[in-house]
Amino acid sequence: MANTPIAVIAGLGSGSGTGAAAARLLAKEGYAVALVARGADSVKALSDEINAAGGTAEPFPISSYSTTDINTAYAQIRAHYQGQPIRVALYNATHDVWKPFLDVTPEDVRGVIQTNLEGAFAFSKNVIRAFQANQVDEKGKRGSLIFTGATASIRGNVTTSAFSAGKHALRALSQSLAKEFGKQNIHVSHAIIDGGILTNSARKRRNDREWEQNEDVRLSPDGIAESYLHLIKQPRSAWTWELDLRPAHEKW
Amino acid sequence: MANTPIAVIAGLGSGSGTGAAAARLLAKEGYAVALVARGADSVKALSDEINAAGGTAEPFPISSYSTTDINTAYAQIRAHYQGQPIRVALYNATHDVWKPFLDVTPEDVRGVIQTNLEGAFAFSKNVIRAFQANQVDEKGKRGSLIFTGATASIRGNVTTSAFSAGKHALRALSQSLAKEFGKQNIHVSHAIIDGGILTNSARKRRNDREWEQNEDVRLSPDGIAESYLHLIKQPRSAWTWELDLRPAHEKW
Amino acid sequence: MANTPIAVIAGLGSGSGTGAAAARLLAKEGYAVALVARGADSVKALSDEINAAGGTAEPFPISSYSTTDINTAYAQIRAHYQGQPIRVALYNATHDVWKPFLDVTPEDVRGVIQTNLEGAFAFSKNVIRAFQANQVDEKGKRGSLIFTGATASIRGNVTTSAFSAGKHALRALSQSLAKEFGKQNIHVSHAIIDGGILTNSARKRRNDREWEQNEDVRLSPDGIAESYLHLIKQPRSAWTWELDLRPAHEKW
Amino acid sequence: MANTPIAVIAGLGSGSGTGAAAARLLAKEGYAVALVARGADSVKALSDEINAAGGTAEPFPISSYSTTDINTAYAQIRAHYQGQPIRVALYNATHDVWKPFLDVTPEDVRGVIQTNLEGAFAFSKNVIRAFQANQVDEKGKRGSLIFTGATASIRGNVTTSAFSAGKHALRALSQSLAKEFGKQNIHVSHAIIDGGILTNSARKRRNDREWEQNEDVRLSPDGIAESYLHLIKQPRSAWTWELDLRPAHEKW
Repeated sequence: MANTPIAVIAGLGSGSGTGAAAARLLAKEGYAVALVARGADSVKALSDEINAAGGTAEPFPISSYSTTDINTAYAQIRAHYQGQPIRVALYNATHDVWKPFLDVTPEDVRGVIQTNLEGAFAFSKNVIRAFQANQVDEKGKRGSLIFTGATASIRGNVTTSAFSAGKHALRALSQSLAKEFGKQNIHVSHAIIDGGILTNSARKRRNDREWEQNEDVRLSPDGIAESYLHLIKQPRSAWTWELDLRPAHEKW
Repeated sequence: MANTPIAVIAGLGSGSGTGAAAARLLAKEGYAVALVARGADSVKALSDEINAAGGTAEPFPISSYSTTDINTAYAQIRAHYQGQPIRVALYNATHDVWKPFLDVTPEDVRGVIQTNLEGAFAFSKNVIRAFQANQVDEKGKRGSLIFTGATASIRGNVTTSAFSAGKHALRALSQSLAKEFGKQNIHVSHAIIDGGILTNSARKRRNDREWEQNEDVRLSPDGIAESYLHLIKQPRSAWTWELDLRPAHEKW
Repeated sequence: MANTPIAVIAGLGSGSGTGAAAARLLAKEGYAVALVARGADSVKALSDEINAAGGTAEPFPISSYSTTDINTAYAQIRAHYQGQPIRVALYNATHDVWKPFLDVTPEDVRGVIQTNLEGAFAFSKNVIRAFQANQVDEKGKRGSLIFTGATASIRGNVTTSAFSAGKHALRALSQSLAKEFGKQNIHVSHAIIDGGILTNSARKRRNDREWEQNEDVRLSPDGIAESYLHLIKQPRSAWTWELDLRPAHEKW
Repeated sequence: MANTPIAVIAGLGSGSGTGAAAARLLAKEGYAVALVARGADSVKALSDEINAAGGTAEPFPISSYSTTDINTAYAQIRAHYQGQPIRVALYNATHDVWKPFLDVTPEDVRGVIQTNLEGAFAFSKNVIRAFQANQVDEKGKRGSLIFTGATASIRGNVTTSAFSAGKHALRALSQSLAKEFGKQNIHVSHAIIDGGILTNSARKRRNDREWEQNEDVRLSPDGIAESYLHLIKQPRSAWTWELDLRPAHEKW
């Protein structure tokens, strides 16, 4: 028990997206998953679901991705898992703003900043320090930190001034960390998710059965989670910083 | 007088860098230059220098690149130049943080955010609205907005987690704006400055006469300003969004 | 037997590199591996080794990566595996030229061209046509085509004028194919191998036991092959076109 | 006369495109322009036009961009301009192939290779050696070598497997040369032309007066040439390797 590795996952959407799929998969792989997200009810619901399925999960709901809230949640995690090593961290939080530039409000910009800069820096600092305290595992790794990006991480576009600014910043952070901490056997990765993901909110918004059922045209959270698990398992001699993920029929 | 075009320049360093060189060159080209920067004394000094040399300049010092301070300075500019059109805007503000990730403080991150996101969004919103009110000029342009970037705009590195996050965000903003407002004949550009610039602070920091005098090894602010002027003069049929600038002998 | 899927692998180095490791791993995964490379002896040796280990391999040595030689080898493959489907193809051929530009000979350029353009186009045409004849498998895929790239695929440098020209061309081909044939459930990927790989020739050239034994500082062909297998297994809803691979301590 | 600088321009289309516009502009700037292209008649016609307008031009028609043909043309240039320094070189040759991958013939690939690799390497070798023999000029430069690229230089797409392979290769060459020869004060640049250019062949192919007359929607060769001249005039302390050029209203 004391040695069960912990995976900290920040950003869970409504419990049906990438973060939730990663949580389920990592729980099956034997990680105790610490769930950090807004929306106490859905965080609790996902935690209950994973525990009921035989995994080990714990909810750490937050009000925001402010530095303070992230640091508080992290302190709760450390207190809860006395002595267990954090081995995996996923920063999956996002703040979507898709609107013409002149409609972007200072509040939109603040939301983007909090999620992609303040929260991401605070989260990274906590987990990198935790990784530094680990021994290298059999793969030669002290820990894996994965960031979820988007097409907007590498390209600004007409309705993504705010969204892409945040996602570009997050990508820069991930690359800097990968370069700085690779030497310490800490593996930092960035995934560019290119396309619509089949989440509950996408189901509702689109209301398109064809889109839901056609695996060629939309990303599945489980498919993304499989690639995240691959990153986590990569041996020290062949680490990926960045990969892209899109459905087979995506136009890009 | 009423028709003298205005160039708004935000970010002047200590009056010896890219922003100041652009201000001097644009003043020579017939623009009334509105100088927006921190450090009331140095903003005033540059303004006086340009006016003494036969140009037209006015200082608009700010305390910070917060949304509020940028909006206030912009309102002062509008009040000062009654009815004159803003034709050029340069966002040259920067917040340099070069340190190992674990030494980056929340204040460092805040500084990067304010300069590269909050201030840049507020500045852009004001000048783009101003451009929209202009007729197209003889080059087919309502206005030119230039952002100063750096190598860190396209690459994170071991001591640039915060700096490159901000610079990536700024680049994403500039690309989004270029794509959204090109259709309205508003020209948005981004310059990647790759190398050390010969500024007063660099002179002091380096204390290296050989470096100062060898034009092959460091960027001159005047050289950068020449390329900015070229961007401003590009005809509507051949606009550049992005170019890089480095000294001849730079290793890259 | 008639249904055993075929993996065609072009480019095997001396039998100790990425192509060979991929061949061994795919043989273990149940593919009949068709080995296409220069050096009849080493191709035969690898084939024998795989067969002796319980896998199924067949050598198809070529004299060059010319269109003609590639087409001839492909015809031999089709004749040998009557009716068996080609499901995987790896283009791992390379032509290394690292020298100052003025020392690059027309023959160097010819070698780069033959390997990265002529051979790659001919190889791709053959295998994509083969994939088109397949049904989609349980992963939703007609076939996987992987290209091995390098840092020079995305960056030219002082001694890589010829090498990077070829590698850039190969990457462009792979991206074009990924976009064109994703719609047909053909998965095309490109791997950027960033760092020295532990091959027999690297062992000899470096003669550095420390480098050989330290998995943090050099790529292992087996590690690369694991990520290739991951690409092959990705479900249709989450395909990667490009990933990078480097050892944990690589400076980049 | 003996000191008149020479500009060598390879690739002229039918005399109405980027190469021709650059030739006209450089002739006005005082360069003797050496015109290298296929189509002896149109090369002669452009040469006559420039001479009639008071410039100095000379035709050096070639049959192909093979290494041999390029070397022969270069020898003719050296013989013609006894002792005059070559100061500018523009490689503007292109081989357009826009078709689905399975329709691309080995001849298409050969054409791409000859234009973007063989010819480009031979051309570059000749002019770089010529530049090395020059003194640095008042801008601190021994010579300027510019390559014309396209959107396909940085992105493969569904009908550009061959075209983008060639353009990527050319870009890699240009970047390698920029890095290797910047130290020798030789300035190498690459322009990404993103959009349709108003050439005679485009006029015929499109037959669209609105497109021709609307400067916002298509590139003008003269506009491109202006930016090429800017590159040539950049001072040693602020050189651009790469810039993009597109019309104001281009969607990108």
